[in-house]
Amino acid sequence: MEELGRLTVEEFRTASKFPVVIVLENIRSAYNVGSVFRTADAFLLQKIHLVGFTATPPHKEICKTALGAEESVEWQYFKTCRESFEQLRAEGYKIYSVEQAKGSTELQNLGWSSEQKIAIIFGNEVSGVEQSTILLSDGCIEIPQYGMKHSLNVATAAGVVLWELVRGNMNGSGSNLLEKI
Amino acid sequence: MEELGRLTVEEFRTASKFPVVIVLENIRSAYNVGSVFRTADAFLLQKIHLVGFTATPPHKEICKTALGAEESVEWQYFKTCRESFEQLRAEGYKIYSVEQAKGSTELQNLGWSSEQKIAIIFGNEVSGVEQSTILLSDGCIEIPQYGMKHSLNVATAAGVVLWELVRGNMNGSGSNLLEKI
Repeated sequence: MEELGRLTVEEFRTASKFPVVIVLENIRSAYNVGSVFRTADAFLLQKIHLVGFTATPPHKEICKTALGAEESVEWQYFKTCRESFEQLRAEGYKIYSVEQAKGSTELQNLGWSSEQKIAIIFGNEVSGVEQSTILLSDGCIEIPQYGMKHSLNVATAAGVVLWELVRGNMNGSGSNLLEKI
Repeated sequence: MEELGRLTVEEFRTASKFPVVIVLENIRSAYNVGSVFRTADAFLLQKIHLVGFTATPPHKEICKTALGAEESVEWQYFKTCRESFEQLRAEGYKIYSVEQAKGSTELQNLGWSSEQKIAIIFGNEVSGVEQSTILLSDGCIEIPQYGMKHSLNVATAAGVVLWELVRGNMNGSGSNLLEKI
């Protein structure tokens, strides 16, 4: 453990993190939820909001794909995105939906800096982010896609978007943290 | 379909693609294989090599997560990475393993240009890329990770690495292709 610079659960909880909150709205597969927990752990992100009928820990299928990250990553349940967003706005977060929509920002052009708090919403595997939720958010982010399906698995999409945030801020809180370990 | 600029299976097969081959070595979960097919479709990648005990189409679980991408994305089965690499080298590919190893290149520093052919190997969910396979490849790529687990789901890791390749080459074959549609 120590050789690889891995954090313990306690160290993770108290570590300074990238100010990124992931909002999972009505995710059908608890396996996908678990995978997102694992990604949030790997990239040292702030928190996950689980919204609507998205499964919450403790949950057998989340456990199977989160591999313990559901113990380290902070999470909170909300009935609706409206309630989640009220809290996020009070805490100073800008809120973006990941969705293919008119006027959406292509992911590579996002230019996020880790001095700004950001929340990213991922929606249902079939229907995507709810229209009412998109209207409540500050904008949409789109992953450019060229193929036959124009859709990524939601856990894969989360990995892609969250990496884009982290990669541009490697000298931010994450790598400072890493130096401290 | 047309409105979103999606390709048909036939258009996808004949479209000019990013010269990226994904090599999946001994992947345990056919669901993960299917997710990678879907990502390869979305990012318009060249081909997938399925190696060792990695499942191959037609397969119920691949089908469930690939959502048709197993019909559009070209694939080939190899018993060993040695055989896969012989073909790749003959075709002019550089070969990189995704693995945390001494001297590995951090993903954000890869600086790949789409004028170069590249193959990326993802290994088993538990044991990673085989040591013998790492030795046969031209180098290792590492996704910087800060958390408790230091590991991403393999389909998520594939999404992250492949996005890094595509994002730096948005004016390459992919976006030219998009303009043609």
